[in-house]
Amino acid sequence: MRRCVRWRVVGCGGATPMIEHRLLVAPGGLVVGLAVSLDDEESHHLRVRRAETGQRVMLFDGAGVTGHGVLTSAGKGWQATVEQVEHHPPTTLLILAVGAGDRDRFLSLAEKCTELGVTRLIPLVTERSAQVETRLRESGVERARKRAREACKQSGNPWATVVADLTRIAVLGKSYPGVRWLMADPKGTTLGAVTADAPVGWLIGPEGGFTEPEGVQMGERLGAAPVRLGRHVMRFETAAIVAAGGTAWE
Amino acid sequence: MRRCVRWRVVGCGGATPMIEHRLLVAPGGLVVGLAVSLDDEESHHLRVRRAETGQRVMLFDGAGVTGHGVLTSAGKGWQATVEQVEHHPPTTLLILAVGAGDRDRFLSLAEKCTELGVTRLIPLVTERSAQVETRLRESGVERARKRAREACKQSGNPWATVVADLTRIAVLGKSYPGVRWLMADPKGTTLGAVTADAPVGWLIGPEGGFTEPEGVQMGERLGAAPVRLGRHVMRFETAAIVAAGGTAWE
Repeated sequence: MRRCVRWRVVGCGGATPMIEHRLLVAPGGLVVGLAVSLDDEESHHLRVRRAETGQRVMLFDGAGVTGHGVLTSAGKGWQATVEQVEHHPPTTLLILAVGAGDRDRFLSLAEKCTELGVTRLIPLVTERSAQVETRLRESGVERARKRAREACKQSGNPWATVVADLTRIAVLGKSYPGVRWLMADPKGTTLGAVTADAPVGWLIGPEGGFTEPEGVQMGERLGAAPVRLGRHVMRFETAAIVAAGGTAWE
Repeated sequence: MRRCVRWRVVGCGGATPMIEHRLLVAPGGLVVGLAVSLDDEESHHLRVRRAETGQRVMLFDGAGVTGHGVLTSAGKGWQATVEQVEHHPPTTLLILAVGAGDRDRFLSLAEKCTELGVTRLIPLVTERSAQVETRLRESGVERARKRAREACKQSGNPWATVVADLTRIAVLGKSYPGVRWLMADPKGTTLGAVTADAPVGWLIGPEGGFTEPEGVQMGERLGAAPVRLGRHVMRFETAAIVAAGGTAWE
């Protein structure tokens, strides 16, 4: 019930009917007048929260469309009839390319990326992350995508961070032309808030950092400028949050 | 073994003997020429990592003193003979006063605070955090202190963030005179990197934010200026990391 208070205050304002639940649907699933089926997980959440037919819901497709609707029970599951939708324009590209270290820390980062307005999170295969026993592997990438999409509801960001497949540094340049790359590096220059009026990509090493050859490669191929994020060594997910938070401050 | 690579590169430089382990000792425990006993947890870590007598170690007391020494086995436990110590001056006060919401998220934040150079983390008792079932309670504060101290080893910060007792907003002003307070608030002004050449204190609400009376109280009693940290709603620990990371960027 605690949450309803927030939604009433933040989401709607005084006169609008209270939103009882925030729900995630498949991308492209929101069309005015149609009923959208809620998946098993959302249906489970609704049962736990003792949802009732007729309650008002806010809907996110995680791909730039939000909507309002009304809940109806449909057998064991639930549907929402969409009454209104809003299309949100995409924001300027903000990429975090992060060494794919410890899986649990990476999953937590995926959630934070949506809160921070990161448009794309790229798990980088690096020399040192490849040696981490608990590293993010292919099987974990789908879970990271889910965490990023789930965060739309809590953060209100209509765009979930897109989590890319595991990627090698060598292919980054070809895939993202026109991006200004910055590399987290304790030897780099201090940079206050980075303005994000043009596409920016951050390169964040895994625990132990990028190796020297990797650093050289990123400097030469991507023209990445080294930037110092703080005074001390940060875990990869801390550095990534600081970088993204600093960039989004415009 | 992966970690040793980093320590060799970051911690010492080429000519210095390789540091095999980073260890935490009690505050004030580092005196040149004396042997310092390592507690059960550090001894356990050393056994797991198959430590050997004679290995070189770097020592942190979490209260501004670091040292180098040599490991010796002492029965079931371990000792380190301190050969050299360094006293690090304290940095300017950087306070995070954060709604004491979900305990696990708070513990994770305590770790990050040391990485980020936060000098003091204050778990705030607020109207909305008091309703969170999984909130940080008194019993969790000691664990938060431990997490903050543990982070000295990984981050290299000689000063662990001090985690205060659970604190009510009403007493904040009296306890911290001379601090410039900033309050995370979606309706606040955007502030690029905050310079931290004078004591700064951030006030970060719990999930759902501060209530309006709490906001008024902080504005009037502490003169807290509202600052917008991002475009979307952030979880409390994300907002706290962004705030601290932005402040430390001088």
